[in-house]
Amino acid sequence: MIIHIESESEIPLYTQLTNQIIEGIARGQLQSGDSLPSVRAFAADLGVNMHTVNKSYHELEKKGIIRIVPKSGAVISSQEERGKLQNISYQRVSMEFKPIIAEALVMGLSKEQVQEMVTSIINEIKPLK
Amino acid sequence: MIIHIESESEIPLYTQLTNQIIEGIARGQLQSGDSLPSVRAFAADLGVNMHTVNKSYHELEKKGIIRIVPKSGAVISSQEERGKLQNISYQRVSMEFKPIIAEALVMGLSKEQVQEMVTSIINEIKPLK
Repeated sequence: MIIHIESESEIPLYTQLTNQIIEGIARGQLQSGDSLPSVRAFAADLGVNMHTVNKSYHELEKKGIIRIVPKSGAVISSQEERGKLQNISYQRVSMEFKPIIAEALVMGLSKEQVQEMVTSIINEIKPLK
Repeated sequence: MIIHIESESEIPLYTQLTNQIIEGIARGQLQSGDSLPSVRAFAADLGVNMHTVNKSYHELEKKGIIRIVPKSGAVISSQEERGKLQNISYQRVSMEFKPIIAEALVMGLSKEQVQEMVTSIINEIKPLK
């Protein structure tokens, strides 16, 4: 899986990394039980500060997407582990959606356009077989 | 319109303010041409730092949602002004949706659950008449 960090972007580097790891899991490029590189190796590989990788790993851990295992490092959590968090994450995801949906409506997109946009992003991430 | 800032939240204060202003516009509580309070008055009213309000206003301006007019302060832009930005904002909104949709899918929500969540948020913001 190729991670592409844009240092010129307005999006903080650690958020770019977090988002791309989550997308990699959603796309099936990263699987439950897979180990992520060590903070040091990943930082060197991406050409970013170790602090950036660390911050991203902690965000992913807080979201329940990875576990930090002593010695093994960051491991993608299983669907079962994530399932336990589903109520919390349902609420969190819903809270994250709200401001973006409001913005889309304010920018003049119709309800149908917002729904179409969401559907096309879902299909892009998880193409129909 | 009541703005409610939670100082304990993980969401930065200026982002909370930005999001609530956008939601207020989406809900029709704030209208095109309405003036927002001065930075100083708003900060005092909300009990936050002037820097927080300033940062939020600049974010809203960058998104094309308000204009900063010398002397008049921050004014909600018109639908026409926003329309000019629609292509850019379509892309930006789409980019903002992507990581949240990926996260929802990773947390085990089905495509249908994501679509239902989006529909229910849209209807909550813009109830059917």
